[in-house]
Amino acid sequence: MMKKIKVFAPATVSNVGPGFDIMGFALNQPGDVVEAALTKGNRISIKKIYGSRDLSYNPSKNTATASIISLLKSYKIRVGLEVVIRKNMGIGSGLGSSAASSVAGVFAVNKLLNLKLSKSELLVHALNGEIISSGSLHADNVAPCLFGGFVLIRSYDPLDIIKIDYPENLFCTVLYPQIEIKTSEARKILDKKIPRHNAIAQAGNASGLIAGLITKDIDLISRSMKDYIAEPKRKELIPCYDVVRIAALANGAINCNISGSGPSMFSFSTSLEDAERIASAIKDAALSEGLRSETYISKINNRGPVVIK
Amino acid sequence: MMKKIKVFAPATVSNVGPGFDIMGFALNQPGDVVEAALTKGNRISIKKIYGSRDLSYNPSKNTATASIISLLKSYKIRVGLEVVIRKNMGIGSGLGSSAASSVAGVFAVNKLLNLKLSKSELLVHALNGEIISSGSLHADNVAPCLFGGFVLIRSYDPLDIIKIDYPENLFCTVLYPQIEIKTSEARKILDKKIPRHNAIAQAGNASGLIAGLITKDIDLISRSMKDYIAEPKRKELIPCYDVVRIAALANGAINCNISGSGPSMFSFSTSLEDAERIASAIKDAALSEGLRSETYISKINNRGPVVIK
Repeated sequence: MMKKIKVFAPATVSNVGPGFDIMGFALNQPGDVVEAALTKGNRISIKKIYGSRDLSYNPSKNTATASIISLLKSYKIRVGLEVVIRKNMGIGSGLGSSAASSVAGVFAVNKLLNLKLSKSELLVHALNGEIISSGSLHADNVAPCLFGGFVLIRSYDPLDIIKIDYPENLFCTVLYPQIEIKTSEARKILDKKIPRHNAIAQAGNASGLIAGLITKDIDLISRSMKDYIAEPKRKELIPCYDVVRIAALANGAINCNISGSGPSMFSFSTSLEDAERIASAIKDAALSEGLRSETYISKINNRGPVVIK
Repeated sequence: MMKKIKVFAPATVSNVGPGFDIMGFALNQPGDVVEAALTKGNRISIKKIYGSRDLSYNPSKNTATASIISLLKSYKIRVGLEVVIRKNMGIGSGLGSSAASSVAGVFAVNKLLNLKLSKSELLVHALNGEIISSGSLHADNVAPCLFGGFVLIRSYDPLDIIKIDYPENLFCTVLYPQIEIKTSEARKILDKKIPRHNAIAQAGNASGLIAGLITKDIDLISRSMKDYIAEPKRKELIPCYDVVRIAALANGAINCNISGSGPSMFSFSTSLEDAERIASAIKDAALSEGLRSETYISKINNRGPVVIK
């Protein structure tokens, strides 16, 4: 049996334009790394957290270990574990940071203890871990992080997760401006009721996006990338939203939307050259509004978490 | 040049579960027939209407001729026409009766005058004709009637119509109970604002339905066939709704939902035998609530209107 394992779990873009709360996809980078080592006794402890000073060392209050505890409890497994967490993206980045740590935790322990649980069996525990940070059940980061690819959450009750095919040549450029937006705050500003015509337009665009992805119709994807529920409110929280959007579209982007609850934004394009040109243009645009930022270029990651050396 | 033409345009099922206002498909039967004959002068007149006593003989107030008038005006064509309309479904049936007449009208005149207009060019005039009966612009009957197949209206402004692929073995059973529901009345009872969680669930199911149709995943289609906006209200207008739904599902139907604004209801199934068994069961169920009804069995009609002898 292994004594120690190290797992990388990817960042994810959730919401995806009209897919508010129901769509997400995984990136190749950035991502979080969780190491788990067997120890004597049956204590779960966090040895070290790199990349963040704000996260709890209390195992039941940290997403990476809370997901592990949920898993171990559910299968009545008693084991000692020492966990090291490397956060490669900020809390409140809009890139599914807590989901990545939560998924990495359960994925690592499943491999370490050779439990042979399926991803579908791991899902509920990854969700239980993530609830700690977001305060409510949202699968649109956890599901694409765990399963990889582009994911539709058709329904939350019962949970129904559908993997959606997508064009092979879809590149994603992500801009992560160095400000923090708390998911819970970004949710409070949303209206509890939606005008019926907006609900209809949202369903039309969500349907169009899914049709465009499966049939690899880039122009249909582009036309569908409009959110009527969250983005009109949340863009006010991102000072560089308008300039970044204009810069992305002017440089060949198919779309430019908020990733998760922001401040990160993302654009699809159809070549690496376009993706790189967009990255450079939107980084400059954000800086023109006084915001330093990171950019990432990635295809959609179809694997999800992986064991690394 | 022809002197006379006769066109059949199909009934359509709109709304389609979660596709409220944005989806529809064409049936092989029933459908309306419009005959148009060239006459001297430049008067458009209605010679005879079969199958309905409620429709106007005033050409600008009848959908079949209003669509023709819109077309002729737009292209500045002066011609005399005598029109005969055969309604094979009732007004307020929920089967797109007015859309069928409107589409048949423009399709007939396009052929009769050899105008060689594309269906996309005919669309706006068919919509102009249909506005007369519904009072507002809704393309979810006109578009599938004209283009055939299963249609997604991604957006109304601008109008963006997407043909969606579907499983070849999809059979539709329609029940048309002999009561009338006015579209305008069925719209008045809807809420103007939708709880956010319902708007999200609607987008999830609409997306799931589109994914299920394109990937030919019958179980996903079935799970997705739930409407959160119109059906919870409108089922109250259909006395046999519950018994019909139970009878359909108990007899192998994939779904059972309201067609358009009702009172017609429809079920998908995957074989002719299932479709026939469902037809018989739901007709009996409706009768148990005191409602006589017609049933129709049809695959999705991928052609739209056709010239007949």
